[in-house]
Amino acid sequence: METQQKTEIYSPGLEGVIACKTRICQIDGQAGKLYYAGYPIEDLVHHSTFEEVSFLLWQQRLPRQDELEQLDKMFKETRSLPAEVLQFLELMPHTSHPMDALRTVASLLACFDTNLEKSPEANLQRAIFLTARFPTIVANFHRLRQNQKPIQPHPDLGLAANFLYMLLGKEPTADQARVMDAALILHADHEMNASTFAALVTASTLSDIYSAVASGIGALKGPLHGGANEAVLKMLLEIADPANVESYVEQALVKKTKIMGFGHRIYKSYDPRARIFKEYARRLSGRTKFSRFFKINEKLEEVMQAKKGQHGIFPNVDLYSGIVYHQLGIPADLFTPIFAIARVAGWTAHILEYWRDNRLFRPNALYEGPPPRPYVPIEQRR
Amino acid sequence: METQQKTEIYSPGLEGVIACKTRICQIDGQAGKLYYAGYPIEDLVHHSTFEEVSFLLWQQRLPRQDELEQLDKMFKETRSLPAEVLQFLELMPHTSHPMDALRTVASLLACFDTNLEKSPEANLQRAIFLTARFPTIVANFHRLRQNQKPIQPHPDLGLAANFLYMLLGKEPTADQARVMDAALILHADHEMNASTFAALVTASTLSDIYSAVASGIGALKGPLHGGANEAVLKMLLEIADPANVESYVEQALVKKTKIMGFGHRIYKSYDPRARIFKEYARRLSGRTKFSRFFKINEKLEEVMQAKKGQHGIFPNVDLYSGIVYHQLGIPADLFTPIFAIARVAGWTAHILEYWRDNRLFRPNALYEGPPPRPYVPIEQRR
Repeated sequence: METQQKTEIYSPGLEGVIACKTRICQIDGQAGKLYYAGYPIEDLVHHSTFEEVSFLLWQQRLPRQDELEQLDKMFKETRSLPAEVLQFLELMPHTSHPMDALRTVASLLACFDTNLEKSPEANLQRAIFLTARFPTIVANFHRLRQNQKPIQPHPDLGLAANFLYMLLGKEPTADQARVMDAALILHADHEMNASTFAALVTASTLSDIYSAVASGIGALKGPLHGGANEAVLKMLLEIADPANVESYVEQALVKKTKIMGFGHRIYKSYDPRARIFKEYARRLSGRTKFSRFFKINEKLEEVMQAKKGQHGIFPNVDLYSGIVYHQLGIPADLFTPIFAIARVAGWTAHILEYWRDNRLFRPNALYEGPPPRPYVPIEQRR
Repeated sequence: METQQKTEIYSPGLEGVIACKTRICQIDGQAGKLYYAGYPIEDLVHHSTFEEVSFLLWQQRLPRQDELEQLDKMFKETRSLPAEVLQFLELMPHTSHPMDALRTVASLLACFDTNLEKSPEANLQRAIFLTARFPTIVANFHRLRQNQKPIQPHPDLGLAANFLYMLLGKEPTADQARVMDAALILHADHEMNASTFAALVTASTLSDIYSAVASGIGALKGPLHGGANEAVLKMLLEIADPANVESYVEQALVKKTKIMGFGHRIYKSYDPRARIFKEYARRLSGRTKFSRFFKINEKLEEVMQAKKGQHGIFPNVDLYSGIVYHQLGIPADLFTPIFAIARVAGWTAHILEYWRDNRLFRPNALYEGPPPRPYVPIEQRR
């Protein structure tokens, strides 16, 4: 049996298995470093914008001024939703999870794409257009579910600031816009994470980019991936006070329930994204009523470091991101959609790269079921 | 670097890598044998129904009479689309590829699922309900795109016969219903194929079954997977006559273009599904004007056997399935949706099985891009 000859290559969850090569993203899990095409994430957060980072992921180099201006123009020209697509959003149940709405609309956009061209250039256009539209889909759906009229994009605002504007109905402060832009940069890519991998498996049959991106959204929704940031906020609300942290952690360790916001398959040290988010959370929380969440988190870090630090379990990106979004006035069920708004740049970058030297993902399964047996007529079954 | 330490495990497309264990399906690629939970595919095609096979895939045993009746009842009770869902289908552009429509509606169904229960039982209900509705989505969309009114399911017909009825507007003959049922059985599962794998990667984040199934549909659409059956018919129309086969194959081999309907990563002998489909195609084509396609296929087999047989390239399931559907009066762009109507049983079976011992799919990528480098201000770029 072919499948049985190859049982030697079996690592549950494909841990440690190389799925493909990439020039887009590198993680040094021991040192806690993250690079997009060679640029450290810290430099990008402090000096770049999400628009520039999208270009970097797609092209693996930073844009010249004219290239960045052109990309910005394309983003702005394509970010409104056509009336036909808006009509679908209007019909969607208001109780839909925003990730379900986003996945459905991303899938639907395929039905409105009448361009038969499948060239790399045409697919890059689709990547730009999907990245431009994700914030609008999320913001418009959020308005509609509250029986409010969707807000049209603001022609003067960049992608991050415009998202906050369309979502919350007023122009963000420079600080707020900066934090949202940083959050998108931090989430834009992360090597062969589960949603990117789902997108690539789908893309590898030479299906279209909408199918692949819809797979990415579906995978990101899960609480073992993007859904974790929403779960962190629920945990903080449950803990409620820094004084309760120690007993919360102890009970969780006894019951072996997962403590959200800690641990990562690749990072065996402090997640560099968490370090940056923590600084933003500190700056924002110093001035607001949300400082309690920050204090709970600091205490959580201290207790977890004592109990789990030697096992390589450290804060991950989700620990502080939820606090930051909460401080910006964003409801918890939009945290994962924000992750998607950022990650679509990474998904599409990996899809475009994979298609340059495509190979169908078709692993084997190890069969452990009943051996060959004859069919039994229904009246003889018991 | 963690990712570089593990480069030894790299097989492009994960060929030969075990992704997971399963009790559902076994392929013996050397002998050309396919089993669902131990039962040979030949036995199932000749003695079983798609309803029974769905039960088999979900439970890994054949149902008792009362269990089969109960499943049949549930299929019949849930297969109509709610008016709200039909409204979405009505709005979809008539030019949409039916796979895009199916993926979008499968995704949309999540928005109408208000059951918060995530138990295995609740997810099996969802699997039944999705399998019941797929034929209705495809048939209703096909009617709508032709400006015809969707046909309501026929209460007396089984899943396969009812699909033909809703699609073509008249009750199929017993022969036609039997062929469609056999086609669904043959396509219901196939171990760790790309669409099932895409579904599992998505499911492994503990996302929902709709997300996972939407990933499966997206992956199946590609011409390296389910899309191949549509491509075979295009090839046959291009060849047009058995006398042209030899020169067509020779040219394709010179140009190194793929000859559709031949070769499979796992089967290194005659695909057992192709053998069965060929018999159905022979029976149907003997009496119809479509016998020319059958003759082209037989000639293709002969020429390919001489030129490629020693390389282990044999007919696969797609070579004869398209002819069969064509003879039933089904348009070519519905061939892959029929594949999905069958495979949703397999996708959901694998998802339910994987969740029993879930492990996040999170492989690594091998980084081959630029080494760490400092950020360059935009005015200094060239």
